[in-house]
Amino acid sequence: MSFAQRLEARIRKTQTPALVGLDPRFDQLPIVIQKAVRSRDHSDESTMRASAFEEFCCRIIDVVAPLVPAVKPQAAFFEELGPAGCTALARVMQHARRAGLVVICDAKRGDIGSTAEAYARGYLAGEDPNAAGWAADALTVNPYLGKDTLEPFVKVAVERGAGIYVLVRTSNPGSGIFQDRLSPGDTAETNQKLYRHVADVVEEFAAETTGNQPFGCVGAVVGATYPEELGELRDLMPHAPFLIPGYGSQGGTAADVAAGFTSGINGALINSSRAINFAYHRKPYRDEFPPEQWEDAVLAATKQMIADLKFD
Amino acid sequence: MSFAQRLEARIRKTQTPALVGLDPRFDQLPIVIQKAVRSRDHSDESTMRASAFEEFCCRIIDVVAPLVPAVKPQAAFFEELGPAGCTALARVMQHARRAGLVVICDAKRGDIGSTAEAYARGYLAGEDPNAAGWAADALTVNPYLGKDTLEPFVKVAVERGAGIYVLVRTSNPGSGIFQDRLSPGDTAETNQKLYRHVADVVEEFAAETTGNQPFGCVGAVVGATYPEELGELRDLMPHAPFLIPGYGSQGGTAADVAAGFTSGINGALINSSRAINFAYHRKPYRDEFPPEQWEDAVLAATKQMIADLKFD
Repeated sequence: MSFAQRLEARIRKTQTPALVGLDPRFDQLPIVIQKAVRSRDHSDESTMRASAFEEFCCRIIDVVAPLVPAVKPQAAFFEELGPAGCTALARVMQHARRAGLVVICDAKRGDIGSTAEAYARGYLAGEDPNAAGWAADALTVNPYLGKDTLEPFVKVAVERGAGIYVLVRTSNPGSGIFQDRLSPGDTAETNQKLYRHVADVVEEFAAETTGNQPFGCVGAVVGATYPEELGELRDLMPHAPFLIPGYGSQGGTAADVAAGFTSGINGALINSSRAINFAYHRKPYRDEFPPEQWEDAVLAATKQMIADLKFD
Repeated sequence: MSFAQRLEARIRKTQTPALVGLDPRFDQLPIVIQKAVRSRDHSDESTMRASAFEEFCCRIIDVVAPLVPAVKPQAAFFEELGPAGCTALARVMQHARRAGLVVICDAKRGDIGSTAEAYARGYLAGEDPNAAGWAADALTVNPYLGKDTLEPFVKVAVERGAGIYVLVRTSNPGSGIFQDRLSPGDTAETNQKLYRHVADVVEEFAAETTGNQPFGCVGAVVGATYPEELGELRDLMPHAPFLIPGYGSQGGTAADVAAGFTSGINGALINSSRAINFAYHRKPYRDEFPPEQWEDAVLAATKQMIADLKFD
C-alpha cells in the first residue's frame, strides 16, 4: 500500500487531520519523568535524558494513538543528545508504528546523489513497521540543493511505499528572505516567487507517483502562519499531501489552515507539538490538571485540537 | 580560540588546504575490513556495518592526520545504518579530534528557532574535543528556511568556538534550478541570483564574527564544479572561510578551485572523498597497491592531492 493510501486510511478512521508533533525538551518534561529517570542508574547525562525522552514520547503516543492519524517526531531534539538520543528516536518511532500511527520523521534532510539516497534508505521504512534503524513512513526534505537531489528520495519512497514532505513555505517569521525571491520578468502580481518554483517541482513528483489515487507520495510543508500562500499553494499542488506546521503555539488558527484541504479532511495534516506535549503547564490545562496528571492534559489538548479542526 | 583560528593554525602547520571527506559505503570497503567485521560476533547487519565504517574511517584518519588540516565525515552514510551508525559517527569524530584534526560534520542541517539551536548544540562541540555526543568543530547548514534560522547556529558557534558552513552554491549538476533564480529587476548581467542573496547573508554573519581575525566562524559551501561562481563568491564573501566540494570525482580541478583562495592557501578547504577513501580500487592506485594495502593507496592519493593543490 502506498504512503498516501496508508495515511488516507488513518485519516478516515480517526476522522481528523490532527498531527501530534513530538518535541521533547528536558527542562519542560513533567517532574515525575525527570525524577524517575534520575533515580535509575544511568551512565551519563545524555543517556539519562534520552531515556526520559523515550518514556515521555512513548506515553504521549499511547494517549494519542486512538485519536489521531499520525505523529511527527522532531529529530533535532533527539540528536542534541548524541547517539543515545538517536537510539531513543528509533525506539519512539517503532513504538508509534506498532501503535498503528503513521510516523513522519521531521529531520529536514537534503544532499546530493548517492548521499541523498543514503538518507532516504536510512529513514524511509515505508510499509515495514519493524524495519531496523529508523522506521518512518515519511521524512521531511529540504529542496535548496535542487530537483536532482530530490529524485533519490522520491525513488526510495516509491520503492518502499513511503513518502516525503518537501519544505515549500516554512512557518518561521523570516522564511520569505529566500523563499519569496522573485524571478526575472515576474512582478509581485504574477507572484512567481521561489517557493512557487519549488511547488511546481513538488507537484510534478506528486502527480507522477499517485498510482491512480488522489495523492502522490511527495508532499509539501506549508506553514499555517501564511494563510494566503496556503490556498495558492493548494491550487498549485493538487496531488501533494500537505503537512502544515505553525498551528497553535506559532499562531496559526483553524481558519488559517482551512485552505490547505481539498475536500473534507483530505489532503492535509495539521501539526501541533508544544501545545500538546506540554499542555500540563500551559493555560487552560495547568489549572485543571496537576503535573502528575500530565497525560490527561495531553489527552484534553488533543481532543480540543480535534474539535477545533472540525470544519463541517 | 575561534574555529577560524584553529583551522588557520592547522592549515599553516600542514601547508595544504586538502580536506579529506569520510564517505564510507559498505560494498566498496576493502574486503579485509568486510571479512574482519563479519568474523566478529555482531548482533545484526547494521551493527556489523557500523563497526566496519568505524574501523575504515579511523584507519583513514590515522593515515591522513599528519598530512591534512581537517576531515569531513558525511553523516548520511552513518545515519543510513540507524542508531548503530550514529554511534560509529560519534566515535569517528572523536578519533579525528584526538588525532589533532579539525572535524567538519557534513550533515546539512537546518530548522527553525529552538529546533535549529538543538542541532547546533548537538553537533558543535567547538573547542572541546572530548565533548559527549558529536564532537564537531563545524557543521554544514542549509539556508532555505531563512536568515533567522541561521542565527541560532551562529550564536552557538560563537559561544563554543565552533563554525558553520552554509550551502551557497552546491556542486551537483542541478543546483541552479533554485540557487540560480534571479530577483526582480535583475538581469543575467547584474547576476543577482538567489545564491548571491544567500552569500550576502553569509558575509554579514562572517564579518560580524571575525574577532579581528581575517575570517569569521561562518563559512560557505561553494562547489568546485562552478569555477566562475567561485571567484565571484570569493569577492562577495571576503570574511567567509570556504568549503569547496566537487574536486576530483565530481570533476573539479586544481585550476577550478584556485579562485576560492584569498592569499596563498588561506581561506578555503578543498574536499575530496571517494577518490581518497577508495583509492585502492581506482586508477592509478589499483595497479600499484593490492587491496590489503588500501591504506597505502589512501596515503598516495592524499599526497597526490596535496601536490596537485600547490599553487605557488
